[in-house]
Amino acid sequence: MAKQEEHSALKDIISHAKEYGFVYPSSEIYDGLQAVYDYGAYGVELKKNLKDVWWQSMTRLNSNVVGIDASIFMHPTTWKASGHVDSFNDPMIDNKDSKKRYRADVLVEEYAARLEEEGKAAEGKALEQELARLLDAEDLEGVRQLIIDNGIACPISGTTNWTEVRQFNLMFSTQIGSVADESSTVYLRPETAQGIFVNFLNVQKTARMKVPFGIAQIGKAFRNEIVARQFIFRMREFEQMEMQFFVRPGEEMEWYEKWKESRMKWHKVLGVPQEKLRFHDHEKLAHYANAAADIEYKFPFGFKEVEGIHSRTDFDLSQHQEFSKKKQQYFDTEINKNYIPYVVETSIGADRLFLMTMFNAYTEEMVGEGDKAKKRTYLKFHPALAPVKAAIFPLTKKDGLPEVAKEIFDDLKYDFNLVYEEQQSIGKRYTRQDLIGTPFCIAVDHQTLEDKTVTIRHRDTMEQERVAIADLRKVIGEAVSISKIFRELEDK
Amino acid sequence: MAKQEEHSALKDIISHAKEYGFVYPSSEIYDGLQAVYDYGAYGVELKKNLKDVWWQSMTRLNSNVVGIDASIFMHPTTWKASGHVDSFNDPMIDNKDSKKRYRADVLVEEYAARLEEEGKAAEGKALEQELARLLDAEDLEGVRQLIIDNGIACPISGTTNWTEVRQFNLMFSTQIGSVADESSTVYLRPETAQGIFVNFLNVQKTARMKVPFGIAQIGKAFRNEIVARQFIFRMREFEQMEMQFFVRPGEEMEWYEKWKESRMKWHKVLGVPQEKLRFHDHEKLAHYANAAADIEYKFPFGFKEVEGIHSRTDFDLSQHQEFSKKKQQYFDTEINKNYIPYVVETSIGADRLFLMTMFNAYTEEMVGEGDKAKKRTYLKFHPALAPVKAAIFPLTKKDGLPEVAKEIFDDLKYDFNLVYEEQQSIGKRYTRQDLIGTPFCIAVDHQTLEDKTVTIRHRDTMEQERVAIADLRKVIGEAVSISKIFRELEDK
Repeated sequence: MAKQEEHSALKDIISHAKEYGFVYPSSEIYDGLQAVYDYGAYGVELKKNLKDVWWQSMTRLNSNVVGIDASIFMHPTTWKASGHVDSFNDPMIDNKDSKKRYRADVLVEEYAARLEEEGKAAEGKALEQELARLLDAEDLEGVRQLIIDNGIACPISGTTNWTEVRQFNLMFSTQIGSVADESSTVYLRPETAQGIFVNFLNVQKTARMKVPFGIAQIGKAFRNEIVARQFIFRMREFEQMEMQFFVRPGEEMEWYEKWKESRMKWHKVLGVPQEKLRFHDHEKLAHYANAAADIEYKFPFGFKEVEGIHSRTDFDLSQHQEFSKKKQQYFDTEINKNYIPYVVETSIGADRLFLMTMFNAYTEEMVGEGDKAKKRTYLKFHPALAPVKAAIFPLTKKDGLPEVAKEIFDDLKYDFNLVYEEQQSIGKRYTRQDLIGTPFCIAVDHQTLEDKTVTIRHRDTMEQERVAIADLRKVIGEAVSISKIFRELEDK
Repeated sequence: MAKQEEHSALKDIISHAKEYGFVYPSSEIYDGLQAVYDYGAYGVELKKNLKDVWWQSMTRLNSNVVGIDASIFMHPTTWKASGHVDSFNDPMIDNKDSKKRYRADVLVEEYAARLEEEGKAAEGKALEQELARLLDAEDLEGVRQLIIDNGIACPISGTTNWTEVRQFNLMFSTQIGSVADESSTVYLRPETAQGIFVNFLNVQKTARMKVPFGIAQIGKAFRNEIVARQFIFRMREFEQMEMQFFVRPGEEMEWYEKWKESRMKWHKVLGVPQEKLRFHDHEKLAHYANAAADIEYKFPFGFKEVEGIHSRTDFDLSQHQEFSKKKQQYFDTEINKNYIPYVVETSIGADRLFLMTMFNAYTEEMVGEGDKAKKRTYLKFHPALAPVKAAIFPLTKKDGLPEVAKEIFDDLKYDFNLVYEEQQSIGKRYTRQDLIGTPFCIAVDHQTLEDKTVTIRHRDTMEQERVAIADLRKVIGEAVSISKIFRELEDK
């Protein structure tokens, strides 16, 4: 039963996002492109607000963090050095009868999960451990045998007529350069981090940074996922917000803990309740890391990673030093030493953050009593994140009310993203703004003509209050202010 | 001689951009990737400010323009419908001796330009006309013959031993999807416009727009240019800012004129002088257009396109209707008619805008007199565009001045991008800020301790004035305010 509800909640968000202009399937008139999505009129504003708050939190609150914007195309040796060419793979397997392709590890994991659901917890656990052992040993033939031995069948054909297991590289590649002897294979970056690493010395020198310092970046990354799913949670084209913080070797754990704490606080200040967030410390670490944790959010499909904080050691810079034959070292004048800095990274998916924000905002409640009770749906975004800050409504289309409403609109539009609406009943107009999460609705009525006040209707409480037109900028401004968020972030 | 100066000016900008953290060659430690660049610590802020001002001008000043953020990957049929698969080509030719590849049309154009420089203007013109005729007729063999008949040789081998001329499609392609029978070729979008066209009805319905209305978008696009050059002016990966404005058929010329005027004004309000800007009306129109003009800026390498305003008729929506078999029509309740809207587009390259802004800001002047005269270089960005708004300096590192300076920094950092510096002489610190275009330098000195005032040093005039600490937010805020730009844009 719980499972049922969770599935319908994801469906609710997908259809709400589509219907109210947040997210559309890409190229929908051509029946879409799998695991690729477009952001609509309100989605783009929400995403932009999330990116802006992150960017400013990184670069303004930390005077030792600056930004960059590296290109998606990079020199292909970058990905040799980073290890992506050789090992950014998923194991895949084909069923010979259905011709369908699967991730071999996911087939086993799903089968193990079914065993556990059926009460065979020990068997399921054992299977998972065996899978982990085989993957660690890169024993692909062993993974295939595990699938066959357990009789794991293709859901389409129902047979166990499997091909061998092969590694599938997740990077998209293309040919750059038209001049025949210059043409070469380049990749669409699978992560933005490397754009920061290859520019480490450029930024350090030109922005005159001293260790410890950080470089922040927002940009697209691409992964040809074998199985992409859960709406915008796992896409083939997605956007990352990463910050690499360069520190003295040996001081990385202190900074790792600091950034873990600081990033968790960020999500809470933006309105995500403590009980929906948790840390998940990695037990098995990637080859480049000496500590790693995820910040997980309780999605309807379980606690899932939204952000990762990783202590990446000097792995990446050392690799680039080796492959480029150019020293990636920093001379620390305070301790009179040359070293390759260690790196603590914070890495968040902008699309996942967006999805979490939608889930966290999506609220259904019953209003009214008895027979008149009905469901109200609204998005309770933090005002600083809301796509539209205020909607301005004349109560009616006559008596000069639209003119006054438009005057207010024109006075405030430079400072806030606003909507002006004069069609339909005011109740319908309120509902419409609830559905896109507008924190304030401002109604101009006949009293406005007399005393230059308007009513402000608050989204979450539906309460209305009378406010002077002259105070509107201040009232809205304080509620949507990013500075206020910053002050909360800095409160001890 | 004039030519010499212009070339060195481009070189000046490239080296300034590199040295002061605006633009680096991509993956520079691997010796770069041709025609791809990264934005550094100050470059990313300048570009972000340009994009923000554009975005807000579009979506806030025009209550009938909303935004969208479509993906780079789109369904491949999109590019069949738009014509890019069949005809987004450049004619290329190889020299058999040097093995070098060239754009055939550029070889002829450059030869014609040389003729004109040598005083053979009529011959040059005739050659250009013949080239245009052959390209129009898609007579590639004729283009080859023209090259051979004129004895146009390869600059490397010096021979006229040419291959045939072939069409080269400028779209990058890659394979998406790992499931064998689903795998298909997709393109990296060569323009952002199509992401708007395929979402025309989605946006119209979900944001409840009425014709006339517009959809704005900022995003990456990719073209595998045969010859990419002039720094960030023509790159293989670049960023577009496009707005498609949907209007009633027959009303497009009125809107076309309106947007031409409005876009030209935008550049002027942001500080580009009238004499460096001009319209270039297209004589030869693309197959989809019934009117088109460029806004050109006077770069050192000549007047070149920065922005295009195009009346695209109903070409794109009609094509998508035909290829998707889904009606792309709008029912206009005011005139009770169904129609495919006409489109007026404004399309600007964010990177070209950035380059124009750098050129326009880059200033060298002599200061001081006689023997003491020396050159001062500064970037006179509009304060709203400047990467850093103010630098805070304690005059010395003692007597409590750094503490007061840091207090000011902490008080203002939520609202403005700031720099704090206490190293080196104050003169050097001023110079450094001039080179990255910071409009205000704020110095804390001993008088500050007595009367709570500081000096503000103005970048362009180098004048200093005494200002109360309590007034700093207002002084800086007014100068860097985007709202002020908006007010100027709306002034008749």
